[in-house]
Amino acid sequence: MPTPPPNPHLPFGDQRTAPWYGKDILSVKQFSREDLEYIFAVAHEMHDMVNHVGTFDLLKGKILANLFYEPSTRTSSSFTAAMERLGGSVIPINEVKYSSVSKGESLPDTVRTLECYADVIVLRHPEVGSAAIAAKAARKPVINAGDGIGEHPTQALLDAFTIKEELGHLDGLTVTLLGDLKHGRTVHSLARLLSLYKVRLNYVAPDILRMPAELIDEIKAKKIEQAEYTTLDACLPQTDVLYVTRVQKERFSDEAVYESVKGAYVIDPQVMKAARERMIVMHPLPRVGEISPEFDDDPRAAYFRQMEYGLYVRMALLAMVLGKA
Amino acid sequence: MPTPPPNPHLPFGDQRTAPWYGKDILSVKQFSREDLEYIFAVAHEMHDMVNHVGTFDLLKGKILANLFYEPSTRTSSSFTAAMERLGGSVIPINEVKYSSVSKGESLPDTVRTLECYADVIVLRHPEVGSAAIAAKAARKPVINAGDGIGEHPTQALLDAFTIKEELGHLDGLTVTLLGDLKHGRTVHSLARLLSLYKVRLNYVAPDILRMPAELIDEIKAKKIEQAEYTTLDACLPQTDVLYVTRVQKERFSDEAVYESVKGAYVIDPQVMKAARERMIVMHPLPRVGEISPEFDDDPRAAYFRQMEYGLYVRMALLAMVLGKA
Amino acid sequence: MPTPPPNPHLPFGDQRTAPWYGKDILSVKQFSREDLEYIFAVAHEMHDMVNHVGTFDLLKGKILANLFYEPSTRTSSSFTAAMERLGGSVIPINEVKYSSVSKGESLPDTVRTLECYADVIVLRHPEVGSAAIAAKAARKPVINAGDGIGEHPTQALLDAFTIKEELGHLDGLTVTLLGDLKHGRTVHSLARLLSLYKVRLNYVAPDILRMPAELIDEIKAKKIEQAEYTTLDACLPQTDVLYVTRVQKERFSDEAVYESVKGAYVIDPQVMKAARERMIVMHPLPRVGEISPEFDDDPRAAYFRQMEYGLYVRMALLAMVLGKA
Repeated sequence: MPTPPPNPHLPFGDQRTAPWYGKDILSVKQFSREDLEYIFAVAHEMHDMVNHVGTFDLLKGKILANLFYEPSTRTSSSFTAAMERLGGSVIPINEVKYSSVSKGESLPDTVRTLECYADVIVLRHPEVGSAAIAAKAARKPVINAGDGIGEHPTQALLDAFTIKEELGHLDGLTVTLLGDLKHGRTVHSLARLLSLYKVRLNYVAPDILRMPAELIDEIKAKKIEQAEYTTLDACLPQTDVLYVTRVQKERFSDEAVYESVKGAYVIDPQVMKAARERMIVMHPLPRVGEISPEFDDDPRAAYFRQMEYGLYVRMALLAMVLGKA
Repeated sequence: MPTPPPNPHLPFGDQRTAPWYGKDILSVKQFSREDLEYIFAVAHEMHDMVNHVGTFDLLKGKILANLFYEPSTRTSSSFTAAMERLGGSVIPINEVKYSSVSKGESLPDTVRTLECYADVIVLRHPEVGSAAIAAKAARKPVINAGDGIGEHPTQALLDAFTIKEELGHLDGLTVTLLGDLKHGRTVHSLARLLSLYKVRLNYVAPDILRMPAELIDEIKAKKIEQAEYTTLDACLPQTDVLYVTRVQKERFSDEAVYESVKGAYVIDPQVMKAARERMIVMHPLPRVGEISPEFDDDPRAAYFRQMEYGLYVRMALLAMVLGKA
Repeated sequence: MPTPPPNPHLPFGDQRTAPWYGKDILSVKQFSREDLEYIFAVAHEMHDMVNHVGTFDLLKGKILANLFYEPSTRTSSSFTAAMERLGGSVIPINEVKYSSVSKGESLPDTVRTLECYADVIVLRHPEVGSAAIAAKAARKPVINAGDGIGEHPTQALLDAFTIKEELGHLDGLTVTLLGDLKHGRTVHSLARLLSLYKVRLNYVAPDILRMPAELIDEIKAKKIEQAEYTTLDACLPQTDVLYVTRVQKERFSDEAVYESVKGAYVIDPQVMKAARERMIVMHPLPRVGEISPEFDDDPRAAYFRQMEYGLYVRMALLAMVLGKA
């Protein structure tokens, strides 16, 4: 992955020479800090464009194959909107389970067929590593929209972009990750991305759902300050970004333990009294009780704006890999 | 709901000042007679445009989220076509049952997410009142495409527009509603809309499927002449519009009663000999035996044209709430 | 079906006078050799256009109703891409089983409704003859995308176009059809189309899956040279086009017979050593073991290019029946 120019001017020029032309987006591990700055700059341009012009035809005539082996209305809709906002078209493929695709056809064959019709493939698949397999088979760019418990890099990018747009910068921030930190690919990817910046990371989780030790070690090697807590109150007052995830009942073998801890991971206006005035609360959504709707009107509630930032990041990525940014 | 100008000139001008900009379309009860005239005028313009030009880019760059919690190919396709005929794009969301949307996410959260991606939301939902809940949560306009046994206002609008286009006016007409008048939201909404005009309403239904007394009272309060019948022959000769709906076998506890009445509610060329030469037969479709296909070639058979008028009404509504009409 | 001019100049002129304007595409039997030349010429133009320009707005404002009563990701995606590459839009209708369409509505009613919204209908249906029924009901053109074990004419057209583009001509070629020749509508339709040219046809199949005698007779009447084999080695060295289809285990009542023959119908680099250097291997896809992935990088492996030719053929057909070619 070559490093794109650090201070992009966005000429929307000749596609063959564009730095990201034809690249795959597979993992947060592929990005340098300079890459992120570039993506954020393009995404910010997309934001301005949508708000001032509404749309333009940057990707007119381009076709996205939106290949979802698992349903994900949110991610699928976001990529569809991103392509359409740029004047492109979408082939929606949501019913993979019924189709020839599932009748024993290999993923490489499916991808090689779809690239006959489309210019870029977005893939959601239940198996770890499937996006890399697809990218290897395809001549056209592949964007990983989630491969099982593996990666979901565009989610991590939109999370980081949200912080950048909301608070102006990433360096120097204290980011608190809350909830199920053991199983969530979202928080793992985000922690990795944030470790490219000078942040402090707090992990707040029940004992059985702690951040994996390997990941803590990996991040420690980058000289990132980290701390673990079992309750939020100890670190909420110093938090700039509170990233909430769901604590699922099914993760607990002992229901009594679940009942005893769950209250500690619910955000509401009362809890948020202890937080700063200038900070944000994020959530990958959907939420099911982790954040009270009563908090929605608080200016610090950034989770719906986060969805919108996701649109701009996906617009940016599509334009980039198609050589238009 | 402010009243738009009664004699619109359709300048397709600045969106912020357009009278219907940002409005929700939730219930037939929200419309005044002047509102209907405005909608009909815009829909008529859409008709002319499709027939003379085919398409134009009035809604280029705009995105519709077509959110269907229940399948409805007909309504969903009609809104999709309406958006595409105006140069806009669609995010189709048909598989709600599989998706995160159904994993406990609240309707307000879903709507607030989708409006990050789209400019207008069309909602079909099995629960009465869901469209109003969605509209309350959303900053962007919501169009109710059916909420359970509640409302389906765009169906009623297209029904009324069909009468207007086919017969030139609504005042002075005798409209006969036939079939299951007890359960049909379609006929209830249409009767309410028609009560804004000087019409006579005939209700023809088996005894157990009569028009609800409350609705008859509501319409009587508007000084609309109404009459009830159990067979069609008594009122068919005076009918200008015969609106046919299905009589479902499952509504009858005694199958013998069903068998004894069902023949009275089937339209065929023989029955129609008693009707006027200049009148129309309508049906919301799909039909299953209520109208014989042998009648389809009769010029009075308006039910397929009715589908096409639906396209123009939905084009008009989309253009209006997006500030382009 | 009138014969179009044999040497078309493709003026993209007035649609009412275009020779294929409004025609249905229902069966390979409707095509003359001159028709094929015309379709191939338009498809070739489409190929050039996609490769040099990417897209253009030949069908801007036109709408395709993509009506699939059976899932077929490949065919559905191909038609969607074809329409979108030409600037048109698509109404995707994949969930027929859930919808009103399946609640007893007749196919003619469904088609007459959809043509109110769309300009052309592509139909996939499990019943033989359904495309003809739809075409009879519709005023707008209908394209058969597979009607049960009946026809799938656009597949046969893309197969023939692939041969033309890959080898330059059809006359004089030896085409070997391999696998299940009894049940495959694909090979039946292709054999019929090829019989318009001076080809030699070899049929290689296990005894219980031989080409139907009636079809052999039908083709013999056109003075086409034909020969039957049970193994490939006898005819592979003289083959210009090897068309591979799947031999399904379920077709055999005696599993021992299946096990004894299956190896004879698998293509891999070793088998292909006996074939010419200039020849092609085709497959309608999906494949499940009939062709080893190790052969994919061989220049003779044309099956993925075949998918791409399918896009151009479907673009050509859409443009033609909409009066734009």
